[in-house]
Amino acid sequence: MPQLRQDLITGRWVAVATERARRPDSFTQAARETVAARDVCPFCPGHEEMTPPEVLAYRTTGTPANAPGWSIRVVPNLYAAFKLSPEGQERRDGGFWQRDAIGTCEVLISSPDHRAPTPLLPRSQVEEIVQSYVDRYRVHQRNPVLEYVLILYNHGRPAGASLEHPHSQLYAISLVPPNFHEELAGATRFQAEHGACVFCRTIEEETRAGVRIIMENEGFVVFAPFAARTPFETWIVPKRHAASFGDLDEQADKGAFAEVLQATLQGLYRGLNDPPFNYFIHSAPLKGDYAHEYHWHLEIIPKLSIAAGFELGTGMWINVVKPEDSAAFLRERIETLAREGSAA
Amino acid sequence: MPQLRQDLITGRWVAVATERARRPDSFTQAARETVAARDVCPFCPGHEEMTPPEVLAYRTTGTPANAPGWSIRVVPNLYAAFKLSPEGQERRDGGFWQRDAIGTCEVLISSPDHRAPTPLLPRSQVEEIVQSYVDRYRVHQRNPVLEYVLILYNHGRPAGASLEHPHSQLYAISLVPPNFHEELAGATRFQAEHGACVFCRTIEEETRAGVRIIMENEGFVVFAPFAARTPFETWIVPKRHAASFGDLDEQADKGAFAEVLQATLQGLYRGLNDPPFNYFIHSAPLKGDYAHEYHWHLEIIPKLSIAAGFELGTGMWINVVKPEDSAAFLRERIETLAREGSAA
Repeated sequence: MPQLRQDLITGRWVAVATERARRPDSFTQAARETVAARDVCPFCPGHEEMTPPEVLAYRTTGTPANAPGWSIRVVPNLYAAFKLSPEGQERRDGGFWQRDAIGTCEVLISSPDHRAPTPLLPRSQVEEIVQSYVDRYRVHQRNPVLEYVLILYNHGRPAGASLEHPHSQLYAISLVPPNFHEELAGATRFQAEHGACVFCRTIEEETRAGVRIIMENEGFVVFAPFAARTPFETWIVPKRHAASFGDLDEQADKGAFAEVLQATLQGLYRGLNDPPFNYFIHSAPLKGDYAHEYHWHLEIIPKLSIAAGFELGTGMWINVVKPEDSAAFLRERIETLAREGSAA
Repeated sequence: MPQLRQDLITGRWVAVATERARRPDSFTQAARETVAARDVCPFCPGHEEMTPPEVLAYRTTGTPANAPGWSIRVVPNLYAAFKLSPEGQERRDGGFWQRDAIGTCEVLISSPDHRAPTPLLPRSQVEEIVQSYVDRYRVHQRNPVLEYVLILYNHGRPAGASLEHPHSQLYAISLVPPNFHEELAGATRFQAEHGACVFCRTIEEETRAGVRIIMENEGFVVFAPFAARTPFETWIVPKRHAASFGDLDEQADKGAFAEVLQATLQGLYRGLNDPPFNYFIHSAPLKGDYAHEYHWHLEIIPKLSIAAGFELGTGMWINVVKPEDSAAFLRERIETLAREGSAA
């Protein structure tokens, strides 16, 4: 029988369709050519004037702002779907409501190297990426008009990356997104029933089961969720209970986070020959106290299947790969890469 | 300023990103070759043995079952994510819940002609498609283990159509999908506040505003929703309040539905050179009384943008085309096609 699996956090049911099951390595991407676009890329060193002035850069001492010499560079997004405006307007249009999309959108350029795929960046560079996430998160956290900060990364054109030069994005917006409310509702229900954080309990359950664990270190556990929505969906969750990504403040935590992020993305990249994927960080809203119920984490959603009529019509997902199988596949790849790395 | 628009039914906010605005005709698809796969297509006449035995067929008098001579043929889906089983099992896996995916999946083959795109089928054939939807809906409606019937159509490979031969799909499942609960919550709230059906009110508001109406006839109104999630999202809503698609029982209604469905799909096809899209019918669950609050309808979601990190991370959509613009574009195309048709 095909199975439905319930996500412990949100309560949603996912169909794991064994009838359509595919072996994990059947998702390996065909080889393809990289289109060089370096001469017109607004994110390459030397083209700093093509973007709005930088709001943050980590750069060699002595180099001026908005000039080469940076390792990470953060700029406002030229095509912002949200903008900061002195007064946000809300108004009726007949029986409908419309309001200004208040917020700010930034591009976090991950590396000066146009062709360096994020999953293959050295650890030191991934640590700088994580540092830039934390630095920008904290800046927006102080802005009283903002309610939520989403940091995300789109990898590959099928996953929505319109520019090849590796970059993350930050959306700091004036409303709390529905996905947070969905997770919070589940977490609150679980807290009331079991007196525990549903994310902490998930880590315990996954550690006990073992079969969906991909890797862990002193600070983080990486696993395929029991009710994974897509082939190779992978979560990175801090072992220490903390509601906000802005709490990632100790150097040890940041290093541990960079380690698992790098290893997981590299495992995906090497294991499936550079598949398209999205990741995003789910964190508590900037206002309100969610310290008890909420637990920040990073979700990686590979783009290996199409959300079609069933998914759009029901809001449910059909996953054609068992998360136990994708976890075993990634675990093996990451262990092999670690052995090769330590032997080199 | 970019705008957020609220969907009257669900309360969700959609960002209409005018900064990234694109002209409606910029979504016109590039010409592409059709891959002929007729000799191995399990849905073509003469290959009836490649599918499970038919559960419904409209065929020339005298032709035997599971042989050529049909105009519409409905068969069980060989790759079913849901199956009927005498006893559905629910069980724990550690702290997680899993249950059998009880239900049935069918393929509704729209035409014997492999290469006939559904949007270009003649009206009489679209009427038969609608009739097959109603007939199969009613069969599953009588099965006490089923809770919900979703009828959907995926058009084009990017929208998840894995076989080229035009076909719709039916999922009759033993749970009520989250999207229904989301719509019901909004409809119930609206009913309590305004004493009216939110779908009926939407038709009134859209008719009054006019700018998002694409077409209408005596039974149905076709419009781009105020808070459209994607470029060219289009809804077909019956003017007569009815909760269930199974209530589409009068011949007049079926004919009027086939008329607007055919004209809308043809407008999309001709206007944007065969874009990929999904449509599905949202209807009340099979059990329970939703006659007062709910109102069945069909939603068309073209696949012209990618749901990336922002959409996956927030559960919100960014739409780069104003629904007023997509409605004007489609309205003009449909009117032109009607003039050409009546002149021919």
